[in-house]
Amino acid sequence: MKKIFSLFTLFLVTTVFAQKQTSEKQQRFVMVVHGGAGTILKKNMTPEKEKAYMAGLQSALMAGYMVLNKGGSALDAVESAVKILEDNPLFNAGKGAVFTSEGRNELDAAIMNGKNLAAGSVASVTTIRHPISAARTIMEKSPHVMMIGKGAETFAEQNGLEVVDPKYFYTEERWRGLDRTRKDDSLKKLRSDSSNAMLTIKEDQDHKFGTVGAVALDMQGNLAAATSTGGMTNKKFGRVGDAPIIGAGTYANNATCAVSCTGWGEFFIRLVVAKTVSDLMEYKNFSVIKAADELILKRVPELGGDGGLIALDKNGNFSMPFNTAGMYRGYIKSDGKPVVKIYKE
Amino acid sequence: MKKIFSLFTLFLVTTVFAQKQTSEKQQRFVMVVHGGAGTILKKNMTPEKEKAYMAGLQSALMAGYMVLNKGGSALDAVESAVKILEDNPLFNAGKGAVFTSEGRNELDAAIMNGKNLAAGSVASVTTIRHPISAARTIMEKSPHVMMIGKGAETFAEQNGLEVVDPKYFYTEERWRGLDRTRKDDSLKKLRSDSSNAMLTIKEDQDHKFGTVGAVALDMQGNLAAATSTGGMTNKKFGRVGDAPIIGAGTYANNATCAVSCTGWGEFFIRLVVAKTVSDLMEYKNFSVIKAADELILKRVPELGGDGGLIALDKNGNFSMPFNTAGMYRGYIKSDGKPVVKIYKE
Repeated sequence: MKKIFSLFTLFLVTTVFAQKQTSEKQQRFVMVVHGGAGTILKKNMTPEKEKAYMAGLQSALMAGYMVLNKGGSALDAVESAVKILEDNPLFNAGKGAVFTSEGRNELDAAIMNGKNLAAGSVASVTTIRHPISAARTIMEKSPHVMMIGKGAETFAEQNGLEVVDPKYFYTEERWRGLDRTRKDDSLKKLRSDSSNAMLTIKEDQDHKFGTVGAVALDMQGNLAAATSTGGMTNKKFGRVGDAPIIGAGTYANNATCAVSCTGWGEFFIRLVVAKTVSDLMEYKNFSVIKAADELILKRVPELGGDGGLIALDKNGNFSMPFNTAGMYRGYIKSDGKPVVKIYKE
Repeated sequence: MKKIFSLFTLFLVTTVFAQKQTSEKQQRFVMVVHGGAGTILKKNMTPEKEKAYMAGLQSALMAGYMVLNKGGSALDAVESAVKILEDNPLFNAGKGAVFTSEGRNELDAAIMNGKNLAAGSVASVTTIRHPISAARTIMEKSPHVMMIGKGAETFAEQNGLEVVDPKYFYTEERWRGLDRTRKDDSLKKLRSDSSNAMLTIKEDQDHKFGTVGAVALDMQGNLAAATSTGGMTNKKFGRVGDAPIIGAGTYANNATCAVSCTGWGEFFIRLVVAKTVSDLMEYKNFSVIKAADELILKRVPELGGDGGLIALDKNGNFSMPFNTAGMYRGYIKSDGKPVVKIYKE
């Protein structure tokens, strides 16, 4: 009798434990977002503006949470979150994108599915309300990964994406930004005898760059990454940064992590930052934190660049390092409580 | 006396050995080129055509050799070799580029310097005779890595690069190729109920894709890589392949290797092929041969793609794997004897 009782107890304990494991596994989902890194200092911020940025990040996190909490895919979650940030004029993506030297808004975006390494990206589009959805449509409805310019716009339109007049992306704040940058640039040109464009750009980068991004892990254990940007204020010559480059600004692989970067794009391209984070995890057994730090706190600044990234691994561990004064960032887990941050801690 | 004689002998031997070492080191340079991978079968080739392809590859190798043999840089060598291939109408880059669905030639190229990880790339340019030189000019004379479309053309023109009428790129052979592909594609459209564009493209890829590339190691121990392409016959929507994507189709790092890829670009982008070859060497101590094989013989075909690459390590070891029927390829070392190959061995 005692033996039977013991066996029964063992059975009960095992069952309860197994259920707890399953339920923990089912509920384990995470979403991390960023809204750009740069010289973001509390002293330059009004309480209203700070509140608006935090509310923007929270909305994006909640959009992702709504998807993940009902068992939706990481891919849907990152797209939803980035769309919210694209619609928010505070962030340099979609509406609120910065202006090129010709006074246009040229948008870039990329998305990647860690489950099957499918990827999609657009560069230099001017009429698509949600570039991130164009990237996803390319990934899912074309045999291609990357499309640019008018061709990408035609493809998006043919596939039913929302097309807007380029004026839709206009915001007065960004227009004034272009004006300011143009004046700065021409002053610098007057002052400078050297043709070292690198230095000129270095002084300016902080109010010039900006990107939004999201990474997510869903209940099924799938990872996804998405990045969207309006590029660089006063940019010329059809410059493309790291955001739409798979492996540089955006990468996801269920075997390792999902990554979205923000910062001085040229350095992120040259270091192939997002894929390197993944490779350090895969081939050197680095944790997601150690791998992300290696790039953001060491290699990017050593090469002369700056910025930050968000990275999330297959077990839900994540990292949000940056080497600038601040980075708009936040995360949400299955408890549904969004946590957002702006400055260094 | 005997002792003195011995010491003298030792001195002599050491000196001669040291000189031999130095001279070997000084003379150790290598250049490897490719002209695209695909269904290249001896039975489909005339002896004249075969000879012409081999002569084209030899010219490119000799151009690189001339640079390297007089102590020039790997960067100059890969640019020279790729320019020769861009000028040769047999290869899908520069003159001889394939046509888009709109009957245009849109060219992509990238270059990378392994010494300082500097990189430059262009996509979708239509008026620059040597896209590889535009990529190099972006790398050296702008703070950017990637420029696309009209902006890139303007930058190239402002920096004195040779600009041609888009008609310069026309070749009858490629125009007939577009015609053929258009007919094939519309037949397939009629035949097919499915919207699986992937399958349609798979049947066709061999006469559609094509790329040229070069990697070099110079006497100073510096590595460089360059890739140039006319893209994909009948391509739509501003599609961009792997060639101009740093990390995907092109990568160089003195610490590891220089890589230039050719093949079904979408798979090379998703796998970030060139950087992964480098990372497998850096983090897993793979040889250049093992790392290149891992990508070309395993990962690319496993994901459903095909193609090949050339990879050269800092010690002069190199690999030219492909998983297609053939790949136009060749190498030259300090002995000045070019070796070129087309089919499987």
